[in-house]
Amino acid sequence: MAAAPAAVALVTLGVDDLPRATRFYEEIGFAKSVSQSRDTVSFFRAGGVVLALFDRRALAEDAGLPEGGRPDFGGITLARNLSSREAVDEAFARAVTAGAAPLKTPRDVFWGGYSGYVADPDGHPIELAWNPFFPLNADGSIDLPM
Amino acid sequence: MAAAPAAVALVTLGVDDLPRATRFYEEIGFAKSVSQSRDTVSFFRAGGVVLALFDRRALAEDAGLPEGGRPDFGGITLARNLSSREAVDEAFARAVTAGAAPLKTPRDVFWGGYSGYVADPDGHPIELAWNPFFPLNADGSIDLPM
Repeated sequence: MAAAPAAVALVTLGVDDLPRATRFYEEIGFAKSVSQSRDTVSFFRAGGVVLALFDRRALAEDAGLPEGGRPDFGGITLARNLSSREAVDEAFARAVTAGAAPLKTPRDVFWGGYSGYVADPDGHPIELAWNPFFPLNADGSIDLPM
Repeated sequence: MAAAPAAVALVTLGVDDLPRATRFYEEIGFAKSVSQSRDTVSFFRAGGVVLALFDRRALAEDAGLPEGGRPDFGGITLARNLSSREAVDEAFARAVTAGAAPLKTPRDVFWGGYSGYVADPDGHPIELAWNPFFPLNADGSIDLPM
């Protein structure tokens, strides 16, 4: 199967106060998804990418980073979404071959998907994920249910 | 004039070695824009968002951050592109009213556009920019010339 073009589907910002951050992004004009947001996470349609807000420590932990993150972890992760568990495994292996550091090998995760993380050569964490709840567009972006 | 929906048009990663980082993103499948990339910056089509790579220190400086960045600056900026200088000024004022910290007041910049930066309530830098070279789509994303 030909791989979808590589894409950044989500950008997740680690935040210290989720209600405050959620209000801020609403006030500056981002459209929050009511159906997908939870007490622990907010999702916004942000043009061709999804903006997510998540607790900063929980985000570092999710990315397989040491407690509180690496010194150079600024609390932002990028996610590339893929069409299947197998596509995640493939993208993970390809990234490591290309010079990424494995942070978290792909695995089934609590939210019902399958996810792993690598760090790019400069330490920026990239999630590789299969998410059965977020429909994937042909260009690799996701069509966030609102 | 009604504002375009808020969107993240670009994600810029600060990197220590631009050729190395550029090779990495090419190898994992991102499509580099030949016409827009320069010796100092690489642009990739990344689904519905543009991924940019730029020197880490230059990125901190561009964002109006102290030399080397704030301790919590992880070397990633988000950019919202707007349709005019006036729209940038408006979005800047709206963000500050909503609780953002001004980092760099909007101004004409060396690459031929108009740009300012704010930090969101958690310190994440957001650029607000008018870029006459990157056509803006109706959803606030940009149509990167390849």
